Amino acid sequence: MFTRTPIISFVGKSNSGKTTLIVKIIKELKLRGYKVATIKHTHHNVDMDTKGKDSWKHSQAGADAVIILSENKMGLFRTTSKRVPLKEMVETYLRDFDIIILEGYKTEPIPKIEVLRTENSNQMVCKNDEHLIAVISDQDPMINVPYLPINTDTKKIVDFILSYLKIDLFI
Amino acid sequence: MFTRTPIISFVGKSNSGKTTLIVKIIKELKLRGYKVATIKHTHHNVDMDTKGKDSWKHSQAGADAVIILSENKMGLFRTTSKRVPLKEMVETYLRDFDIIILEGYKTEPIPKIEVLRTENSNQMVCKNDEHLIAVISDQDPMINVPYLPINTDTKKIVDFILSYLKIDLFI
Repeated sequence: MFTRTPIISFVGKSNSGKTTLIVKIIKELKLRGYKVATIKHTHHNVDMDTKGKDSWKHSQAGADAVIILSENKMGLFRTTSKRVPLKEMVETYLRDFDIIILEGYKTEPIPKIEVLRTENSNQMVCKNDEHLIAVISDQDPMINVPYLPINTDTKKIVDFILSYLKIDLFI
Repeated sequence: MFTRTPIISFVGKSNSGKTTLIVKIIKELKLRGYKVATIKHTHHNVDMDTKGKDSWKHSQAGADAVIILSENKMGLFRTTSKRVPLKEMVETYLRDFDIIILEGYKTEPIPKIEVLRTENSNQMVCKNDEHLIAVISDQDPMINVPYLPINTDTKKIVDFILSYLKIDLFI
């Protein structure tokens, strides 16, 4: 593991329900008092702020980075010469978090949970990935990692994740 | 100066034309090949991404930080326990830029240009600030810093800024 911060990625095809699941997990982690960060990798364009705002105008004018800052929030938009490596991203921007949840990182050597919805697709994206730690699905995919039914209580999923990450990172 | 990166703030009342001017200056700096960052301080709420997007859902669920990343852009939204000090902001997020342009930082000990539009207000916000280096206005405020008429060619304003920052930081 390249970082001391516990990190886990949710993978799966489009429309498998990754975001819905992550939202539930974030809420449960926050109830338990954890400081949570998420990273979503997208092949779509990243909008540089909301159209029409001053900071958006700065981006449109060509600014390579734009920060907007209030008393208790900040937003940063920047262009990068390449896709920023995950390690660099975590070390630069997410040093002070208890857990980092990723969406859409299929190829990094980090613990992964695959979300599989068979009505959407029977194909897994990380079936043979040695870092796959569980499958959350409407059907048991019958592979050699724990299977959690899609309707598993979020608390139990979070227990599983925290238990796994503690074993991996803290013990 | 607390940072090696040249930094300048544009100050002035609301509707004085700060953003319009900054946009012109960014464009000119980009034409000259500089790597430009901007920071806008606001008393308004910072929107955590665009409503409805997955990363926005992460924020809404309570994530303390959300990063969205594509091949050549990234966005970071995070909550902060206090307003992040400018020095920390620059050192953490904006190390690799040629110039940083601020909008709305009235009280920091950094070079400032005030934008004054007398039809909007006759009151200056940084009249007696020892870091005020120029006033850009539709009327000469008759104070002891250079006055640049509001219709001054952007190239000349940029020449002035670069000249000042070089003197201040590099010589």
